[in-house]
Amino acid sequence: MRILGIDPGYAIVGWGVLDYHNTRFSVVDYGAILTEAGTPFNERLEQIYDESCRIMRYFHPESMAIEKLFYNTNAKTVIDVGQARGALVLAAQKCGLSIAEYTPLQVKQSVVGYGRAEKKQVQEMTRLILNLPKIPKPDDTADALAIAICHGHAGGSLFGGGKIDPSRIRQGI
Amino acid sequence: MRILGIDPGYAIVGWGVLDYHNTRFSVVDYGAILTEAGTPFNERLEQIYDESCRIMRYFHPESMAIEKLFYNTNAKTVIDVGQARGALVLAAQKCGLSIAEYTPLQVKQSVVGYGRAEKKQVQEMTRLILNLPKIPKPDDTADALAIAICHGHAGGSLFGGGKIDPSRIRQGI
Repeated sequence: MRILGIDPGYAIVGWGVLDYHNTRFSVVDYGAILTEAGTPFNERLEQIYDESCRIMRYFHPESMAIEKLFYNTNAKTVIDVGQARGALVLAAQKCGLSIAEYTPLQVKQSVVGYGRAEKKQVQEMTRLILNLPKIPKPDDTADALAIAICHGHAGGSLFGGGKIDPSRIRQGI
Repeated sequence: MRILGIDPGYAIVGWGVLDYHNTRFSVVDYGAILTEAGTPFNERLEQIYDESCRIMRYFHPESMAIEKLFYNTNAKTVIDVGQARGALVLAAQKCGLSIAEYTPLQVKQSVVGYGRAEKKQVQEMTRLILNLPKIPKPDDTADALAIAICHGHAGGSLFGGGKIDPSRIRQGI
């Protein structure tokens, strides 16, 4: 199963592509789509749409896992992040990917094992699970990889119900 | 100048196409894009995108005027309306339309003459300006026509600065 994880935004869209086979992840690629402040918002939306389409067509993931937004996430930016998320979901729909969404709580539970984990813990666990030499930058990219891991766990059978035992991951099981 | 007015939403997208020449409006067509509750959100977004593209390609408006969203508009729906708005803005961008956005205050000021006008007043004035036998339904369609009028006024020269004298409109000037 090839998964595209997306951390939605309008200035930075984090993305990461993972393969998940036999309860093991392998990293295909990851990065961030950046749009410049000062560029008209409609052009930024188009850049996000076009660039995410390119990523989908290049790596051929079967599914996109994307963070669910909440009203209280960030009052000032939530509408523009919502619009960017609309462009990303539309891109996935046009490229024929199945779409799954996860709350930050679900991602933390799936990656670290409990929902109140701190951002740094999620990033470090993401690094360990993916066997990366260091935590990918920017944070949005690391978050996108964590969302992709969450989807792998949810779709896999080892842990069931998205709950995992971090000690097993540390041992590489 | 041919204008597409859009009242963004995910269940109902109101739209209206107006021609504005020599300070007079003429109605080209209007309606609403409807998506069914219970349909997966990504499919609703795609329907909104495809249908709005069809309208743009059929009527060839030069510009889209769309309502600006605010964080306090409706807490429960603002994120999904934001995503739908992203799909609509993307459609306009892909179809080569210029995009203008107006606050509800600007629309009321432009159509009725003052910003605290009630919804019903805006609708009735929209009907009068466009010389329609009755107020178009649903409300979203009437709102979309009001937004298109606002853009016509903003781009026209008669009233300047988007402020108009309603008595002159009643006289058909």
